[in-house]
Amino acid sequence: MLSEFSLIDRFFARRARITPRAVLGIGDDCALFAPSAGEMLAISTDMLVEGRHFLADVDPHALGHKALAVNLSDLAAMGAKPQAFTLALALPQAREEWLAAFSEGMFEIAERFDCELVGGDTTGGPLNICITVFGEVPPQLALRRDAAQPGDDIWVSGTLGDARAGLGVLRQEWSVDAGDAATFCRALERPEPRVALGLALRGHARSALDISDGLAGDLLHILERSRVNATVDVDAVPRSAALRRLPSDLQRRCTLAGGDDYELCFTAPAAARAAIEAAGYSVAVPVTRIGTISALQNAAAEPAISWHDAAGMPLTLTLQGFDHFHAN
Amino acid sequence: MLSEFSLIDRFFARRARITPRAVLGIGDDCALFAPSAGEMLAISTDMLVEGRHFLADVDPHALGHKALAVNLSDLAAMGAKPQAFTLALALPQAREEWLAAFSEGMFEIAERFDCELVGGDTTGGPLNICITVFGEVPPQLALRRDAAQPGDDIWVSGTLGDARAGLGVLRQEWSVDAGDAATFCRALERPEPRVALGLALRGHARSALDISDGLAGDLLHILERSRVNATVDVDAVPRSAALRRLPSDLQRRCTLAGGDDYELCFTAPAAARAAIEAAGYSVAVPVTRIGTISALQNAAAEPAISWHDAAGMPLTLTLQGFDHFHAN
Repeated sequence: MLSEFSLIDRFFARRARITPRAVLGIGDDCALFAPSAGEMLAISTDMLVEGRHFLADVDPHALGHKALAVNLSDLAAMGAKPQAFTLALALPQAREEWLAAFSEGMFEIAERFDCELVGGDTTGGPLNICITVFGEVPPQLALRRDAAQPGDDIWVSGTLGDARAGLGVLRQEWSVDAGDAATFCRALERPEPRVALGLALRGHARSALDISDGLAGDLLHILERSRVNATVDVDAVPRSAALRRLPSDLQRRCTLAGGDDYELCFTAPAAARAAIEAAGYSVAVPVTRIGTISALQNAAAEPAISWHDAAGMPLTLTLQGFDHFHAN
Repeated sequence: MLSEFSLIDRFFARRARITPRAVLGIGDDCALFAPSAGEMLAISTDMLVEGRHFLADVDPHALGHKALAVNLSDLAAMGAKPQAFTLALALPQAREEWLAAFSEGMFEIAERFDCELVGGDTTGGPLNICITVFGEVPPQLALRRDAAQPGDDIWVSGTLGDARAGLGVLRQEWSVDAGDAATFCRALERPEPRVALGLALRGHARSALDISDGLAGDLLHILERSRVNATVDVDAVPRSAALRRLPSDLQRRCTLAGGDDYELCFTAPAAARAAIEAAGYSVAVPVTRIGTISALQNAAAEPAISWHDAAGMPLTLTLQGFDHFHAN
């Protein structure tokens, strides 16, 4: 059994391949850190709990990746550049093998995004991973949820639904061939935060968020904060080749209510279409137009999404986004 | 059962009596926030787990207080001024009564220290509270752990040991009269972060930390980071009148290895004695000299604490600070 202090020294010490940003990091009461001149800190915190955000037998390397990836995804959704993070970790026991794999998974993605671990806390307890991440963004370029305007196009990055399809495979809700299963499970366990795309969208997109709880629920957050409606073509929602091999009702369930996609959903004026396409191209991430923002019918109306298919036929969906106090 | 979003709206919305510091707070992917010119952010994170940091039947109002208090205590130990915090909360169930009391306890102390809740996360799961707190301090005035020098006095604020005595009462390790029990339990459940003292010590103290795991273990962190030794008079360690009514071996156990005190331990040159006394007086917090920092015997030596009693008789203590991977 390792003590807290030897654990931090062994598995969470400063890494040479990450730019040091804190003037004081792990080992004091606080880290000391400041954003660059003209930038603000973008701060987000996410807590991952066993049985709810990951299964008990998850590969610890993948878990280390995902714990930081979902936080970096929040920075991406803000158009912020990753700088640093803190890690608080409750562990039922300090198993060296598990910690070695977990910290390796976490630092691999931390190095890739040059994001320094500047502080943390470790304790015994049911497995719980809480990361707070810090990025930088000039405030006037931040991609907020409350900035969508009538007439904006609605875009999403990458493809949606694979992570939910992977969960279904692990839960044996459906079975697919080994190749598709690997595609889906990789999407679930190794989400790729769209940080470069978020940066490329600065000055072009108006509003953005990352899709963590399903497109239907998450897009509604933009609508509620911006006080607008949306119309979405469900057949335009981008899907992987693997997902297209599932029955079409499952495709819709996975793409619209799936969760764990960590793709960006964003809005931009129609005049910015070429710039948005160029931004996606510049970072090698496909971007797809799926709908349009429109005005509320009156000031008291509840923002809503109107769904239709490729033929323009209205669809009634009763899908809900993932809510952490309900079963998925 | 409340959903995540209605829960945040109802219990964790922005409070009127706290100065808004984030240009964007709860409800977007990230909070946007920057320190004042010339200041750095001091950042600390603490995770509290049921059964380890608090008992299952703890008053939720006290728990809300303590969860933020222990984080503010880290800012105090840095000489930093509280600005903002994020809260991540895993709850086995969303009980309104519990959440109302917890959030009230948390916001009472947040208002007192004018510290804004700028973001967070809620999820189902075994009860777990993870707060990341942000303060401001000019970097050259920060009270670091690595700045103690030979000849420095060692000081502590307030009195030590009451919180550990309270834990002993709750665990029925010992019994005391009702008045002392109330004193001890209040110390355990309602620690008061020494924020004002930390600010008053800027420019006078050299090194500091907060005593969360027991004086013996925590002072050693200053010694290890500063590469120095310490000599401490155990009889000079300040104790409450209630603690002085316990047997003397228990007094020592509680004051030296107790944990959960959240008093400051700091070092300062002997020439600063009057300034330190004045700083304590200005914020109405007693400060007591308990020992002296000395040089290591050689560069390879392990830093250590020499304990003695009021008569100068050396004492051998085998106390250890609280380590979260060992039983206390």
